[in-house]
Amino acid sequence: MSLSEFALIERYFRKVGAMRTDVELGVGDDAALLQSPPGAQLVAAIDTLNEGVHFPPGSPPASIGHRVLAVNLSDLAAMGARPSWALLALTLPKVDERWLEEFTGGLSALARSHDVALVGGDTTSGPLSVTIQILGHVAKSTALLRSGGRPGDKVFVSGTPGDAAGGLAIEQSKLQASSEAERYLRKRFLYPSPRLALGDCLRGYATACIDVSDGLMGDAGKLAHASGCGLELVFDDVPVSEELVSAVGVERARELALTGGDDYELCFTVRPSEVGRLQHNLPPGRWGYCCIGTLREAPGSIVTRGGSVIEFSHSGYDHFGA
Amino acid sequence: MSLSEFALIERYFRKVGAMRTDVELGVGDDAALLQSPPGAQLVAAIDTLNEGVHFPPGSPPASIGHRVLAVNLSDLAAMGARPSWALLALTLPKVDERWLEEFTGGLSALARSHDVALVGGDTTSGPLSVTIQILGHVAKSTALLRSGGRPGDKVFVSGTPGDAAGGLAIEQSKLQASSEAERYLRKRFLYPSPRLALGDCLRGYATACIDVSDGLMGDAGKLAHASGCGLELVFDDVPVSEELVSAVGVERARELALTGGDDYELCFTVRPSEVGRLQHNLPPGRWGYCCIGTLREAPGSIVTRGGSVIEFSHSGYDHFGA
Repeated sequence: MSLSEFALIERYFRKVGAMRTDVELGVGDDAALLQSPPGAQLVAAIDTLNEGVHFPPGSPPASIGHRVLAVNLSDLAAMGARPSWALLALTLPKVDERWLEEFTGGLSALARSHDVALVGGDTTSGPLSVTIQILGHVAKSTALLRSGGRPGDKVFVSGTPGDAAGGLAIEQSKLQASSEAERYLRKRFLYPSPRLALGDCLRGYATACIDVSDGLMGDAGKLAHASGCGLELVFDDVPVSEELVSAVGVERARELALTGGDDYELCFTVRPSEVGRLQHNLPPGRWGYCCIGTLREAPGSIVTRGGSVIEFSHSGYDHFGA
Repeated sequence: MSLSEFALIERYFRKVGAMRTDVELGVGDDAALLQSPPGAQLVAAIDTLNEGVHFPPGSPPASIGHRVLAVNLSDLAAMGARPSWALLALTLPKVDERWLEEFTGGLSALARSHDVALVGGDTTSGPLSVTIQILGHVAKSTALLRSGGRPGDKVFVSGTPGDAAGGLAIEQSKLQASSEAERYLRKRFLYPSPRLALGDCLRGYATACIDVSDGLMGDAGKLAHASGCGLELVFDDVPVSEELVSAVGVERARELALTGGDDYELCFTVRPSEVGRLQHNLPPGRWGYCCIGTLREAPGSIVTRGGSVIEFSHSGYDHFGA
């Protein structure tokens, strides 16, 4: 890439995201200068998406821009934090203005909708890869950790996991469904909605929280492990969308919900004594979450059905074959 | 990569860098929780190194780990900021424990020497690429910007630029020198020293500052442009190392100093009336910097020799042919 190409890209970067008064200096100097709110803790996460690994070659550029921010926002949602600023490291095989326009459009729309400013970036030559570093804030000692669960805590999940795995399969031509279901499932893969509002509200209710990115069963298991607990999930309580059921049937839909990736929903735990207060103040129907199991004393993860443990592998890879 | 491979890498990440009491939660949850010092501004930068672009294939893993942190620390040095925390996004074609051990060793040694904690990371599969996001602090309204220079300000540079370009040429077998000079120049490319102590001390003296990563002439020109000035550099005042001179001669050494990349030195400007105070309090011999020119009213960059303007291109690419 030539210097003028880098300058072109920097021009795109300057237009991305929200304007925030706590950004004293954004894109264009050696580093950004930022003002954290007094008393708040800084919350920081980083995530990369690589072409051919995290999205199929030829994916819509707007979706790549949206997703790379969404996966980072989802990390902040899982901490109960509010996002403020993002930095972008973009590796491109070549400069394609139309691609850049669409990519920054997707990134910018999601950034603005959550009041996130893009404050820095680095563009390099190489195979397509996008990394976002997200920065946000949470009031001191209120962040949701993975480690706060206790045996007996009820386990919840937001949304309808599995949809993104179905959408990816459609993108890869490994699954067909009605045009309406395909539209819905593809959108769930290409444009996930990070659950920032829910995460923000869960502080004060949830004992532990994790974002579901690598499959519900595996991620819930990570939460249980970090909390020094085991996990019991109830197969028939796992929520699935009508669209996914219409495409693969209810059994397979629940399997995908437990093992598929890229959902960016929240999995969280609540003390049994607090479940009533949670459901009163955050009605499950309005907030879109439901109870799927319990943390146990005994280590390891089990799935039950009709009171019996069923065989279930949580390997979530390549559900639809090669 | 398998889940167990990701777990292995996370174990390496947990050992990297300094321990800091302002890290409430580091590697291992969805995001890190960090406590900025009261009254300080947060300073954030991000930089990527890609194999085959920023370092030759087969480069020593310790050097890759060192350099990706060094280039980020250099951005903070140019702001006059002190580093606190880093996040790492690492894309690997395969898991090689020895490579990881050496990479994290190089990264960790530099991080510890500057009291930087590694607080987060993401590991993905793909062509070798490393991104660091660095976070640091500077007292409010004291950061060094590129834009504070005025016509008449004297232009300074630290160290002996051009060495890294010589070292890269030796790495690529495009240049030969005495074994002593080769050792020195290779080290300057493979293990650059970010000028954090100098940057920290320059607050209160420098009107503008930039780190020299893409070639002194181009980067000094960016500083001049951001300051609304032109640039005059004096060819014979450009500092060069004995080792580079021994390898390429003094003329070519100064050309490389002006146009070579990867130096990670600081270029800064000082009001003429302040130069005496600067040199008294930060003796140039001890701090390793010297005056190489002046900011001018007229836009654009010129290089002079014996009082006359000489022809000089600042295209810094591929000095040693293909």
